[in-house]
Amino acid sequence: MQVYHLYSGGKDSSLSAWILTRLGYEVKLVTVSFGLLDSWKHAKETAERLGFEHQVLYLSREILEKAADMCIEDGHPNRAIQFIHERALEEVAKIASRISDGTRRDDRVPFLDLPKARSLEDRFNVAYIRPLLGLGYRTIRELTERLFIIEIRESEELEKSDYEVELRHLLRERGIDPLTIFPRSHYQSRVLGWKEKVF
Amino acid sequence: MQVYHLYSGGKDSSLSAWILTRLGYEVKLVTVSFGLLDSWKHAKETAERLGFEHQVLYLSREILEKAADMCIEDGHPNRAIQFIHERALEEVAKIASRISDGTRRDDRVPFLDLPKARSLEDRFNVAYIRPLLGLGYRTIRELTERLFIIEIRESEELEKSDYEVELRHLLRERGIDPLTIFPRSHYQSRVLGWKEKVF
Repeated sequence: MQVYHLYSGGKDSSLSAWILTRLGYEVKLVTVSFGLLDSWKHAKETAERLGFEHQVLYLSREILEKAADMCIEDGHPNRAIQFIHERALEEVAKIASRISDGTRRDDRVPFLDLPKARSLEDRFNVAYIRPLLGLGYRTIRELTERLFIIEIRESEELEKSDYEVELRHLLRERGIDPLTIFPRSHYQSRVLGWKEKVF
Repeated sequence: MQVYHLYSGGKDSSLSAWILTRLGYEVKLVTVSFGLLDSWKHAKETAERLGFEHQVLYLSREILEKAADMCIEDGHPNRAIQFIHERALEEVAKIASRISDGTRRDDRVPFLDLPKARSLEDRFNVAYIRPLLGLGYRTIRELTERLFIIEIRESEELEKSDYEVELRHLLRERGIDPLTIFPRSHYQSRVLGWKEKVF
C-alpha cells in the first residue's frame, strides 16, 4: 500500500507522513520544485533525518508564472498558493494510486473542499488521504510535540521548501517586493528529527 | 493521552478506534443509550472482541423524545440523528478532555461542520478528533477489509447499537411505522473481530 505524500519538510507534512506509516502505508515523500531554486533540499534533508524516502517532482515553470500573476492581481498570495497546490496534487495523481498532503481542518489555503477532493479522486482514479483533516490544533500540537524535535527561529527566510520560497523569488525577479504580497511572519519552525519515534 | 470515542460497534467507529490507538491514544469506547433497550450490548460485544475498554453513556430520555418529534415533523430522520449526535458529543465532552467519533468526510448526517466542531471544542475545552475525516471511501474500505472480519447480512434489524435502534423503537411505541421515516436498508454489516490486528 504505497502512498505519495506532498512534503514541505514542515511540522504538518511530517506529522501526516508519520500517521500514514502508522496506518500501514509505505510512504514516499514528494517535494514540488519549479527548478528556480534548490529549496527542495531542505525538505529532502528533513525527510532523510526522519528516515523517509524522498523525491523531487518538477512542475512546469508556467504554473509558477501564473501564480505570480495571481499574487500581483490580488495583492495577497491565497489564490496563487491554492492554484499551485491543486496542480501539484494533479501531477502526483498521475504517478500514484494513493496521494496525500498535510492540509488541516483549520486551514483556509491551500484546501480542497469536498467537491474538489472528490473531483480529484474521480478524474485521476486515486485515493486522496488527508491525515490531519480530522484533527484540531490541540491534537496536532500534542502529537508534534511528542514526536519531533522542532527548532523555532525568528527569521523571515528560513530554510523552507514550500511553494512560497520560489514564488517570492519569482516576484523579486519581476521587481516586486514579496513583503507587499505575503504577510510578514516572525517565527518559523523546522523539524530537526524524531524526539520519540513511535513506529 | 486518553480519548473517549463514541462507538456503535460498526465498521467506521471500529476503524476510528484502531487509528486512535495507532496514534498513541488510550482509547475508551463509549456507546450511547437512552435506557429503552439494551441494544448497546452489541457494541459492547464487538468492543470486547476487539480488546477495547467499553462503557455505556446514558442520555436523557427527553433527547430521544425530541428526536422522535423531529422525525415525525420532517418525515425523515436526518435532523433527529444530527440532534442526538450533538447531544452525545456534548455529554462525552463533560467527562473527557479528548473526544472522538467515526464520522467520515463523505457523511452528511451526523456531521459537525467547522464552526460547530470549533464551538464544541471551545464550549467544553476539549479536543475533538475525527480519524476518518481525511479519508475517502476507498481508503476506508481498504483499511477495514485489511483489519476486520465483517459479516454482511440481508436484514432489516441487525444487532446494532446506533441511535436508530432506540429511535425506531420509540416511534413504534407511538404507533408510527419506522419504515415511513427511515429508508429501507437491505444490507447491514457487522464487525466480528480482527482479521489482521496491526498493533
